[in-house]
Amino acid sequence: MFPAVTRAFLLSSMTPVCRSGVTVRRYCMKNPTKLRVSEAFLDAQVGEKVRIQGWVRSFRPQKQNLFLHVNDGSSLKSLQVIAPAAMNDPLLGFGCAVEVRGILKKSPHSKQPVELEAEQIWVIGECNPVDFPFKIKERHSLEYIRQFLHLRCRTNAFSSLLRIRSEATAAVHSYFKNNGFLLVHTPTITSNDCEGAGELFQVEVGQGISWFWSFFSVPVYLTVSGQLHLEVMSGAFPRVYTFGPTFRAENSQSRRHLAEFFMVEAEISFTESIEDLTKVWKIGSTGFTNCTKQKNLITYTEAIDILKRSSETFTFPTDWGCDLMTEHEKFLVKHCGNIPVFVTDYPHDLKPFYARDNQDHPKHTAAAVDLLVPGVGELSGGSLREERLDLLRSRLGECGLEDTYSWYLDLRRFGSVPHGGFGLGFERYLQCILGVDNIKDVIPFPRFSHSCLL
Amino acid sequence: MFPAVTRAFLLSSMTPVCRSGVTVRRYCMKNPTKLRVSEAFLDAQVGEKVRIQGWVRSFRPQKQNLFLHVNDGSSLKSLQVIAPAAMNDPLLGFGCAVEVRGILKKSPHSKQPVELEAEQIWVIGECNPVDFPFKIKERHSLEYIRQFLHLRCRTNAFSSLLRIRSEATAAVHSYFKNNGFLLVHTPTITSNDCEGAGELFQVEVGQGISWFWSFFSVPVYLTVSGQLHLEVMSGAFPRVYTFGPTFRAENSQSRRHLAEFFMVEAEISFTESIEDLTKVWKIGSTGFTNCTKQKNLITYTEAIDILKRSSETFTFPTDWGCDLMTEHEKFLVKHCGNIPVFVTDYPHDLKPFYARDNQDHPKHTAAAVDLLVPGVGELSGGSLREERLDLLRSRLGECGLEDTYSWYLDLRRFGSVPHGGFGLGFERYLQCILGVDNIKDVIPFPRFSHSCLL
Repeated sequence: MFPAVTRAFLLSSMTPVCRSGVTVRRYCMKNPTKLRVSEAFLDAQVGEKVRIQGWVRSFRPQKQNLFLHVNDGSSLKSLQVIAPAAMNDPLLGFGCAVEVRGILKKSPHSKQPVELEAEQIWVIGECNPVDFPFKIKERHSLEYIRQFLHLRCRTNAFSSLLRIRSEATAAVHSYFKNNGFLLVHTPTITSNDCEGAGELFQVEVGQGISWFWSFFSVPVYLTVSGQLHLEVMSGAFPRVYTFGPTFRAENSQSRRHLAEFFMVEAEISFTESIEDLTKVWKIGSTGFTNCTKQKNLITYTEAIDILKRSSETFTFPTDWGCDLMTEHEKFLVKHCGNIPVFVTDYPHDLKPFYARDNQDHPKHTAAAVDLLVPGVGELSGGSLREERLDLLRSRLGECGLEDTYSWYLDLRRFGSVPHGGFGLGFERYLQCILGVDNIKDVIPFPRFSHSCLL
Repeated sequence: MFPAVTRAFLLSSMTPVCRSGVTVRRYCMKNPTKLRVSEAFLDAQVGEKVRIQGWVRSFRPQKQNLFLHVNDGSSLKSLQVIAPAAMNDPLLGFGCAVEVRGILKKSPHSKQPVELEAEQIWVIGECNPVDFPFKIKERHSLEYIRQFLHLRCRTNAFSSLLRIRSEATAAVHSYFKNNGFLLVHTPTITSNDCEGAGELFQVEVGQGISWFWSFFSVPVYLTVSGQLHLEVMSGAFPRVYTFGPTFRAENSQSRRHLAEFFMVEAEISFTESIEDLTKVWKIGSTGFTNCTKQKNLITYTEAIDILKRSSETFTFPTDWGCDLMTEHEKFLVKHCGNIPVFVTDYPHDLKPFYARDNQDHPKHTAAAVDLLVPGVGELSGGSLREERLDLLRSRLGECGLEDTYSWYLDLRRFGSVPHGGFGLGFERYLQCILGVDNIKDVIPFPRFSHSCLL
């Protein structure tokens, strides 16, 4: 039956249209208006002759008529097409690509406002139902469709996810733009390796697995965060953000981890408190979810008290100074009424060199904050940054990093201001608002330990 | 003088405000309206008490008054501040960060609509004028400021570039969104290595320069293009695009090459001719530049004729079948009147496996197109993709890639449609519209051979 994928089947009583096979090919000189399926539902075109291009999502041949549903990705909804049975063809079926021309009519059925009465149907590309992994009228699980990364956009579930992801991305940009933030393209390749060398991907020019020279003359890595680069810009722009891929080489196949994920990061100058910072954050989140209205700010010290006082048995210790583990985070979210919870002022020793020293006693804390949410745990983390040159220099000195980060110290030498920022894992955010259990189902091409398909 | 960067200097007759140094610090309970400098120029606040936060871009102490210009990145323009000479302080000077409170007044000078009569000035962070690489009233070259990647955003030239880059990014997203395109986050890490292994960056988990295990179980690379991944999505969404970092390990320090650069890529289904494709492209370009109005489409064969007929002496051959080199591209652009020029239908053998075979004789061409622009040469490239299963399979077979790309062949097995797309180098585009000679000056953190600063 192959190679008929580009064969244009003219299944009508009208004159066949020549498709020459060379670069310029047109169906006919006078084309009726091309409509997207979502536009057809707007109803304004009823009575008009239109053409629709898309893929067949259901196919029901009856004695007198054929019924097809054609989807073009513009909406979850498909357009019902009715054609005389004489237009049937062996290549017409579930999954194939078609162009349909006809008159858009009000539908007699309550299920859909309009339907297309076909005058012509072309099969643009056929689809062998035996080989195609998705079957008509079957409901496939997310796990099943995930095996076919190159085809899963053709399912209702994943095409909906892609539309939402695209809209959520636009909403992120729109929120920051409307609030006076400058978008900064922070780099993917960086010579910074501050946040734990074990989790870093290194980059080099290679052929196969032999590494023959150093392209950049220094070891370079895939970025784990654009924060330090945003801080550079926050010395001239009080509100900056970035939104792009970040990388962690965590050897995890969990439902919450990816090796490559998207992060929204913002940095705000002239900010002097965690509360001020979380306000920007809350406004941002409200912009897309309205899920963080409640009063939901607790300190790490209060969190430890809550854990200690609880009757729950935890695997990991809950002593002051210990990191909060997933089990603790889950408990805290539940304890607060299953809403997003900000935990602030973590032990100073748990946080990276850039976190602002609260200079408190006897419990020495840093002005850092994590946002915990139901279902996914840690969604976001942030801090005030240490803007005081002397404190930052001595902290870097303790880590033996004073020379490496002399450029970062410069930012505190020349017009330093109190500032802070946060990063939000975009996939975890999508998991959270959509209730999707596995992070691999909210990103087009998931990369994780032992898997990099396509 | 250090560590006074966070010392808040209260240079007024009012009661000093306590800044405790702990997490929550506020200047005072009742804050006057905080304005961005660009908002101050909107004029509506004249007569109001306001506060401004930013960096001092010029400083002129006179006998009776101090004159400062304060910039906060919201605009190229700075706000003029006038203060009594008594408010002067050794820490106040070029480059320092300040908060100024006072009354916004109409300016008596024609240079600016408004000015701020200061009642209080705080130096938030000082700036040592000896160490600071940029000097007051000096005009520094782009080459000079490029040495200080972490500070160059504080110059007029580079802060303007950053604002334009941010706006141009928003314009790209806005154009595609308004034209029904779905944004797809194509992956940065990929196991595809189709476009010439010599130019690829390889990714692995490493410590220092020892490579100890394969994280993904297969060799993986930094993406050179999101095209193949967009093609996956174009099997369910007729209009998709991506906008993100792409990578080429070209050993070049030229003014037109970066190892990491941003690319806008779009893929359009149900497209059957290069002309249709360039229409989308032109509309897109017009959306931000209006620079491609003229008739400017020539075939490769016509281009070769033009080169052959010219009196110019070229270093590289101009025979049919040879690739167009920079010297040829420059000549063609000039020949066409120094406007953007589309060159179409390149020799089949010069183009990758996915380019659509025009099946013409005797000169065998593919439906590929490049966009050449004045100043930067090749800005963009695209093609119709080979959607015919049999032709694609035999081409992949010739390259020994049939197994590797079985997933790509699947896209032609199940509901294949005629489609095509293009990629546009975002930095080259910025160079083109801004007339910036060196590509390193239109990206925040340039990465190129032997250089990966910060």
